[in-house]
Amino acid sequence: MTPVVGTEGTHIIVEASGCSPDVLSDPKKIERIFKDAAKHAKMTVKASHFFKFMPAGVSGAVIIAESHISIHTWPELGYAAIDVYTCGESNPEEAVDFILERIGAKHAHVSEVRRGIREEEGTYTHTILTWEEEF
Amino acid sequence: MTPVVGTEGTHIIVEASGCSPDVLSDPKKIERIFKDAAKHAKMTVKASHFFKFMPAGVSGAVIIAESHISIHTWPELGYAAIDVYTCGESNPEEAVDFILERIGAKHAHVSEVRRGIREEEGTYTHTILTWEEEF
Repeated sequence: MTPVVGTEGTHIIVEASGCSPDVLSDPKKIERIFKDAAKHAKMTVKASHFFKFMPAGVSGAVIIAESHISIHTWPELGYAAIDVYTCGESNPEEAVDFILERIGAKHAHVSEVRRGIREEEGTYTHTILTWEEEF
Repeated sequence: MTPVVGTEGTHIIVEASGCSPDVLSDPKKIERIFKDAAKHAKMTVKASHFFKFMPAGVSGAVIIAESHISIHTWPELGYAAIDVYTCGESNPEEAVDFILERIGAKHAHVSEVRRGIREEEGTYTHTILTWEEEF
């Protein structure tokens, strides 16, 4: 059987700084932003789970067919660790931009990992590109 | 309030090749392996969700307090994309080794991302180290 979606995917890894503590400490707001981001980037949500942990952080993920988006926040430091990993037709950059705008990020350290690249010997590898963004 | 767990964490990104198609196509087996890996590496599981997608792949994640482990598989190609991201006391390398052994991986392309590193100017960054493993 041929896979419906190829192995190649884009995984964007973000350290977001200067974010809104109010948003970062609210699991309901974060879940809404993530579901909207998934919709915005044409991803089909299969499951999601978000929760608050002591004293104020939020942790959670949205699972998409061959991919996921996740967040772990430290509201008191304005910091969030975000991952957006997608295969197929959806646009991970759009989801990342959407999320960063909604959480009020001022700075982002971003690495884009191109995953599932097949090598001549039949093994799979990834490549990485890193940059900074200011908002 | 001081965060219970610091921002620094280790995120291991793996492209696993030559894996067992039987294991990679079974969401129940994958979920069992992931929960055992989390226990083995002293992580506290908060939620998990695994499902099969057409024609044979498995997608899913286990959410831990400030971290997550996830997998997306292409059994017909023996390929799996795995992420293990942890903060605090747990040992992500142990979880990765456990998973790779149980899915029968023959080769792994691995990047270790050190996340949530605070810079002098108060922003957060990550650093990356990449290597290959043969089994």
